[in-house]
Amino acid sequence: MRFLDRLRRTVEIKNSLLCVGLDPELDRLPEGFPRTSDGIVAFNRAVVDATQDYVCAYKPNLAFYEALGPDGDRVLRDTLRAIPSNVLTIGDAKRADIGNTSRFYAKALFEVFGFDAVTANPYLGGDALQPFLDDADHGTFVLCRTSNPGASDFQSLPVRLNGAERPLYEVVARRAGEWNRQQNVGLVVGATAPAELARVRALAPALPFLVPGIGAQAGDLAAAVGSSRDDAPSLISASRSVLYAASGTDFAVAAERAAREMRNAIQLLRRA
Amino acid sequence: MRFLDRLRRTVEIKNSLLCVGLDPELDRLPEGFPRTSDGIVAFNRAVVDATQDYVCAYKPNLAFYEALGPDGDRVLRDTLRAIPSNVLTIGDAKRADIGNTSRFYAKALFEVFGFDAVTANPYLGGDALQPFLDDADHGTFVLCRTSNPGASDFQSLPVRLNGAERPLYEVVARRAGEWNRQQNVGLVVGATAPAELARVRALAPALPFLVPGIGAQAGDLAAAVGSSRDDAPSLISASRSVLYAASGTDFAVAAERAAREMRNAIQLLRRA
Repeated sequence: MRFLDRLRRTVEIKNSLLCVGLDPELDRLPEGFPRTSDGIVAFNRAVVDATQDYVCAYKPNLAFYEALGPDGDRVLRDTLRAIPSNVLTIGDAKRADIGNTSRFYAKALFEVFGFDAVTANPYLGGDALQPFLDDADHGTFVLCRTSNPGASDFQSLPVRLNGAERPLYEVVARRAGEWNRQQNVGLVVGATAPAELARVRALAPALPFLVPGIGAQAGDLAAAVGSSRDDAPSLISASRSVLYAASGTDFAVAAERAAREMRNAIQLLRRA
Repeated sequence: MRFLDRLRRTVEIKNSLLCVGLDPELDRLPEGFPRTSDGIVAFNRAVVDATQDYVCAYKPNLAFYEALGPDGDRVLRDTLRAIPSNVLTIGDAKRADIGNTSRFYAKALFEVFGFDAVTANPYLGGDALQPFLDDADHGTFVLCRTSNPGASDFQSLPVRLNGAERPLYEVVARRAGEWNRQQNVGLVVGATAPAELARVRALAPALPFLVPGIGAQAGDLAAAVGSSRDDAPSLISASRSVLYAASGTDFAVAAERAAREMRNAIQLLRRA
């Protein structure tokens, strides 16, 4: 099934736009977990068990697993195995390379790890993303306007194109729309920049969004939800605010509550 | 020792600007190697043994190792162990993420794998690279003008900044110069765009370059060498033209010859 269809169906069945980032840090594991790779697997499993009713996607960021060294690969695999098959998995990898090399990244992420979708970086241009885009069953969320403070360093620079001047992230949004021949392209747009988020939605009405920046980064939840369309949902991503909702033995209860409350807040805003 | 000092010293001692990319593909292993992870380790070791006298750096691209699945981590480690300590290692990872996450990538690449330098993607802005830049002993080569055909999609767009209009890659080059407070920043500029390479060198006289695109991508060797400065060398990178110089049992002799001839051609151009 094409990625966009799977995404829409998952959002509908789970009745949720919430995506939880599984970004485990050894130093932040709750009380009672050994600060080891096995401790991380156990923690991730507990978080997935506690939150799975409220999410439509989990999004492990590969940096946190690569930093574990030789165990990282196994920890990520064990984590992915704990995720129910009716929830999407997004490999937050932000990869891109020249075409011959990107083929190997696409293979690693879509085939070896088996993610349903990934994040990718547009700086190298369209051919660098082609091996991802060639796969209609898997989604590629292209970084457009990111949620970090330095996002404006380059993404907001005014670019002249076809006689008009617009910020670089808008040019990326338009190009991503052109790449979307197989309904498998999305955009990453941070909730920390609500005006830009609205602008990108106007330019790319047919693309699903992945919206980070809610929670620890204090983004605008109403703007994030407002950007969602029935045909092109905006997945709203939170990581630290769910994972580390509490640091004691009540962490799972707290994570469950944080996910439930965020899902409910999103649903209220969707109906408004 | 600061990265730029190590780089200059290595270039001087090895009398070479040549960087060989260690990008192994199972399907392209020469005759006689099993098409397995162990086969790749043996192949990489043989290539390193055959070429180490002629290179100042090896550059494994992480995509090729990640595509191997669970074995990839061990294959990369075993490959790094085969590289003599007087040759630099560059992790071609093209990573970047929001600051909290980039810390984990920097840890994975500089500490866990122990690369001397990495490549990184500027699209997310300066704060996304800060964890790399904070480490004065390790180098960060920022993608500026890449060697692939799609490089012009975004990198060449005209950007208005401080009243002037210049291509995005020039803005990146200037910003990278500002980030270079610890003499640990370099730029990736492809040999496939010789005019742009010369322009970037004029804008960033103090930064070392990593110049891919020679060999299989048919870049301009004279332009690549011409961009090098004694104080800010340009490392000239070839991968497939060395690794796969021959596909039979003579592959090591052919790789040795390809590396030697390229090193010698570079030295001739340096003296010219």
